[in-house]
Amino acid sequence: MIENNYYSQENHGPYEMYNIGNVELEEGGIIPNCQLAYVTFGEPNEAKDNAILIPTWYSGTNKIMESYIGKGRALDPDKYFIIIINQIGSGLSSSPHNSLPPVSMANFPNVRISDDVRAQHKLVTEKFGITQLALVTGGSMGAQQTYEWAVRYPDMVKRAAPIAGTAKNTPHDFIFTETLIEAITSDPGWKGGNYESANAVVDGLKRHAKIWAVMGWSTEFFKKETWRRLDFKSLEDFITGFMEPYFTAMDPNDLLCMAWKWQRGDVSRMTEGDLEKALGRIKAKVFVMPIDEDMFFPPRDCELEQKMIPNSELRLIKSCGHLGLFGVEPDFMPQIDKHLGRLLSIPV
Amino acid sequence: MIENNYYSQENHGPYEMYNIGNVELEEGGIIPNCQLAYVTFGEPNEAKDNAILIPTWYSGTNKIMESYIGKGRALDPDKYFIIIINQIGSGLSSSPHNSLPPVSMANFPNVRISDDVRAQHKLVTEKFGITQLALVTGGSMGAQQTYEWAVRYPDMVKRAAPIAGTAKNTPHDFIFTETLIEAITSDPGWKGGNYESANAVVDGLKRHAKIWAVMGWSTEFFKKETWRRLDFKSLEDFITGFMEPYFTAMDPNDLLCMAWKWQRGDVSRMTEGDLEKALGRIKAKVFVMPIDEDMFFPPRDCELEQKMIPNSELRLIKSCGHLGLFGVEPDFMPQIDKHLGRLLSIPV
Repeated sequence: MIENNYYSQENHGPYEMYNIGNVELEEGGIIPNCQLAYVTFGEPNEAKDNAILIPTWYSGTNKIMESYIGKGRALDPDKYFIIIINQIGSGLSSSPHNSLPPVSMANFPNVRISDDVRAQHKLVTEKFGITQLALVTGGSMGAQQTYEWAVRYPDMVKRAAPIAGTAKNTPHDFIFTETLIEAITSDPGWKGGNYESANAVVDGLKRHAKIWAVMGWSTEFFKKETWRRLDFKSLEDFITGFMEPYFTAMDPNDLLCMAWKWQRGDVSRMTEGDLEKALGRIKAKVFVMPIDEDMFFPPRDCELEQKMIPNSELRLIKSCGHLGLFGVEPDFMPQIDKHLGRLLSIPV
Repeated sequence: MIENNYYSQENHGPYEMYNIGNVELEEGGIIPNCQLAYVTFGEPNEAKDNAILIPTWYSGTNKIMESYIGKGRALDPDKYFIIIINQIGSGLSSSPHNSLPPVSMANFPNVRISDDVRAQHKLVTEKFGITQLALVTGGSMGAQQTYEWAVRYPDMVKRAAPIAGTAKNTPHDFIFTETLIEAITSDPGWKGGNYESANAVVDGLKRHAKIWAVMGWSTEFFKKETWRRLDFKSLEDFITGFMEPYFTAMDPNDLLCMAWKWQRGDVSRMTEGDLEKALGRIKAKVFVMPIDEDMFFPPRDCELEQKMIPNSELRLIKSCGHLGLFGVEPDFMPQIDKHLGRLLSIPV
């Protein structure tokens, strides 16, 4: 266990904690008294059929996902009961940095997307007594969890909108994620995951941030200097003033836990490797929403999967790259709202 | 100075050396008795108007460029006098690893594309008495040098074919190259450039190789398992059996010298930053030949520049990514031959 104020209630709250008990992991091992950090907006209706679930992405927490929600918008807390659940390893839910021995730090076990979704299912059904979800939506690793939800619980998920993510991770994406992992683990301060403080790994985290700058945005983002929207005066300032501080505040083992999980996202594990069969199980109405400039979840990979989903449509988002998910462009959220609004209006 | 058999005549020869004397560099400093390693194919004709110049790319040498040449092909040694010149820092021409003090190893000065092209100009005119080039062509950094040639010596260059490269490097590409640089310089064995052997930096070179795997190929390359064409049985084998050995054989400082140069390729330095003015100087007939799947010299960036070149056409190459330049696909070289053949057939 290691102190890290970044993940505090002060920075990311208010959020609630729910203990779902021991989670037996697909890869073996247990997370004892696994805690899920979550937030809710709005109230369940009497029929309990107005719940929306939002899982989080790599390095993301409930805080950034709250920017997808708002009165009068598609994800409207006046109409829906919206639950954002932070993924395992996010730093808010059970994670390497905040866990006690025997699963602390480098000893935190490998977690899969499926473990998260089973844990989330427990929270949603046990804590709230919810048995159907009007919508599951999330970006990036949130999309991986969205797919997992739709395939694993086809009768429960009525609509799904995976944004900028795939149901089965690609080999290219796997190697990309390895470069992120190696940027961290190559730092001598990392010490096999038993570093003295996150700051001991700051060089590795900065390299990790720079690789994110290359793959997370796009050639157009830098050509158009879209970073000016974040109030930076130069590209260098943007790297040292945004990309680096964003990641250096985080815990290295937490990032590595999520990275390992991201690399192995694959719904076809439920169908002996048959992706078409897995996606064919989905009963939800699905909008597959890739980002046009995404360098590692490119639209064509998302479209291949969309074509395997019975009741689905491809809805392309125009943005400056994968990290357009942050909503730095004024026309990003309106696109999200438009598509999610349309999806929610379709009777199921 | 450090031993490295990779760059030997045995591995990359036969090649000739030409001493162009002291090169005064644009950034200041001198390379004393600068050596250019070059090879020639065919013979100059009487009018000396059949010369073709080919500069080399990052990590590349004359050896790989020889695969672009052949009897009956566009670059036909029976018709043309073809000169391949290895760039400064390539490991064959003057480079950090093969230079004596005061410019050995970490003390090798910063070199710009313009320094290379001025040096090459000296070789071509002094050694061969050639005053016009029927064609300059090269890939990647070879394209950067091709642009520099066409802008710097507009009366001398009759045709130019920059393949998978830009006249002015983009900010996205600059940051990408920084991740490559940092993969090497973060290795504790690098010791500020004064390592004991290239092997002391092998971990950094392997990380550098993996980032190349992500950006140098494409999502399609990995999805289609195009690496099978190189006779590998698994993706892991391809990484450890091809990407890693390819780069770990090289000298870290040599790679860093080329990387610094690549980051700053910019013909508009000749026109006070006015790229349109620089490209407007070109008198050559130009085919701009980007690779459709290139992740860091994408077609749209190349096309923007092509539109600024008076007598030019865009000729798109279909391939599995930037490193398609290696010619791993059977339909790669036929495309190159087709376009270069057409370009050479145009009277100028």
